[in-house]
Amino acid sequence: MSGPIQFTCPVPLAARDRIVLGHGSGGKLSAELLRDVFLPYFRSPILNRLDDQAVLEINGARLAFTTDSFVVKPLFFRGGDIGSLAVNGTVNDLAMGGATPLYLSAGFILEEGLDIEILRRAAESMGRAADSIPVEIVTGDTKVVEKGKGDGLFINTTGIGLVPEGVRLSPALVRPGDRVLLSGPIGDHGIAILAEREGIEFSTDLASDCAPLNGLVAAMLAASLDIRTMRDPTRGGLSSALNEIAARAGVGVTIEESAIPVREEVRGACEMLGLDPLYVANEGKLVAFVAPDAAEAVLEAMRRHALGRDAALIGTATGTHPGLVLLRTPFGTTRIVDMLPGDQLPRIC
Amino acid sequence: MSGPIQFTCPVPLAARDRIVLGHGSGGKLSAELLRDVFLPYFRSPILNRLDDQAVLEINGARLAFTTDSFVVKPLFFRGGDIGSLAVNGTVNDLAMGGATPLYLSAGFILEEGLDIEILRRAAESMGRAADSIPVEIVTGDTKVVEKGKGDGLFINTTGIGLVPEGVRLSPALVRPGDRVLLSGPIGDHGIAILAEREGIEFSTDLASDCAPLNGLVAAMLAASLDIRTMRDPTRGGLSSALNEIAARAGVGVTIEESAIPVREEVRGACEMLGLDPLYVANEGKLVAFVAPDAAEAVLEAMRRHALGRDAALIGTATGTHPGLVLLRTPFGTTRIVDMLPGDQLPRIC
Repeated sequence: MSGPIQFTCPVPLAARDRIVLGHGSGGKLSAELLRDVFLPYFRSPILNRLDDQAVLEINGARLAFTTDSFVVKPLFFRGGDIGSLAVNGTVNDLAMGGATPLYLSAGFILEEGLDIEILRRAAESMGRAADSIPVEIVTGDTKVVEKGKGDGLFINTTGIGLVPEGVRLSPALVRPGDRVLLSGPIGDHGIAILAEREGIEFSTDLASDCAPLNGLVAAMLAASLDIRTMRDPTRGGLSSALNEIAARAGVGVTIEESAIPVREEVRGACEMLGLDPLYVANEGKLVAFVAPDAAEAVLEAMRRHALGRDAALIGTATGTHPGLVLLRTPFGTTRIVDMLPGDQLPRIC
Repeated sequence: MSGPIQFTCPVPLAARDRIVLGHGSGGKLSAELLRDVFLPYFRSPILNRLDDQAVLEINGARLAFTTDSFVVKPLFFRGGDIGSLAVNGTVNDLAMGGATPLYLSAGFILEEGLDIEILRRAAESMGRAADSIPVEIVTGDTKVVEKGKGDGLFINTTGIGLVPEGVRLSPALVRPGDRVLLSGPIGDHGIAILAEREGIEFSTDLASDCAPLNGLVAAMLAASLDIRTMRDPTRGGLSSALNEIAARAGVGVTIEESAIPVREEVRGACEMLGLDPLYVANEGKLVAFVAPDAAEAVLEAMRRHALGRDAALIGTATGTHPGLVLLRTPFGTTRIVDMLPGDQLPRIC
């Protein structure tokens, strides 16, 4: 035989050539897709910052701008539905930029054969969620695809918010010593969705934590402007949110397992199903990095707000191990909390 | 038998209870869905205006805001693809409000198994289209659904534009006597897509007219600010655009069939397939209502622009037959041009 030796590639090619569910996880595969397929062609300095929202300067105003498509399954679940999720999810991405939500667009992709009553219930829920924030749904679009080419109902919402004077939030502002605050127990949304899908019954009323965080954020910013950055740990859970901040800020993060609130039924379901609450999605929680001097005031403000009643100080940014998130267990050991490569629970939002 | 007599409903219930393809047509069923299912719950005065874009006053600036989801089939076609369509389509909705396009968001819903090379080609096309306008894609989102729950690739784009001082466009400004200008031949996009789907070969190079109209609009507004309103006749074609304006302005519209430019191959394909070019989609054309005194200057400005070279005066707004669009044929007869109830060509954009 002549010619060069042919090597075969040990990496499963399928995962590189074709879209897999993990590309929608918000984890490593999502990041890879963004880096390899979108950023090189869109070439936007603002997009390259990879914040949950773009902050745009228009006529002297700083506007936050963010988009999300919702493909959650099932459409209705305890604690929420695709409609409330679509409104609150985008409002929360605006709020994580410190912005006051103003306006939403709503784009619907409907599957032929969808019961219009289902659409009506989702629209009613969107209207109710928007009223309670308040935010105004000012423009929309509806497309229909043939039966078998969609899955009932997908909703895109895109939001515009106004960033108040003096508010500046960015992972780039995080410094070693900053405190990590979490607004409440993690994993409720993911486990509620999973329970709904799998027909698991809980003895208590575990529900999605789906809620708009703009009020909580306003209360926190009123307590101190020394908040560095915030994230709502949705897809990929608390772990992904912390890893993203650590990587972008160039700091290490150390968190205390015993300080992280997790409901008993979420902990139980996770043990039963082999899940780690750190990776399970939330839809009404936030994690904030706050200057050491301001941490107590911000934590108190959170606890005074209905959505931050169980807020906790869970850790610290450090100058050691930059880019890594470490978890200290109650036994005194430490482990690295990495981002998941793919998906733990597909179609969670 | 006692009790009241039970009547059965003569309207086919299926079309009222379930989503059909016609609900995505931009015609009567779309309007019905909007009126019955969305507007009552969203209760937004801005949305209720039903313009192609919302115009928002934020900090003294007037911003246009618009959203569109793209589900076109096939994804690539002569003259464009889902990527260029997604950028140009939203830019055109901004431009129809007189706005200079500034920023876009991009939301992707991918079907598991999609060839990543297809996504890359679409993203590259989006980047190229955005560069040429120019507009910046500043924020995005990617979701993945299981194989068989989507159709390869759906894209939502939402845009923000700035409406210049002095520009005010609205159907409410249309007056009897206003001239109706059309920027060029109609039906190219719809017939190009249909040809691609059905494997029809044309002797010439018929292609989609997919193009960004913001430059043409800027040239028109530079010629005169006495433009009343503009629409890009996409889904539902020229007929739907004129009917919408007539209804919202409370005027009649009379157009001359012989004045409406239609390419020979589009006319031929329409005759062969039993389609009416007035209902076929365009993606790079606009229709404008202009004050009589300004019409000539605006038409000249259009003709000097590459995308308005074949612009024509096609009709007039009238005080008679308010809400109706009448077509005068070359034989001197007149017929009503109504909106289609449902869909002539599904998934055209």
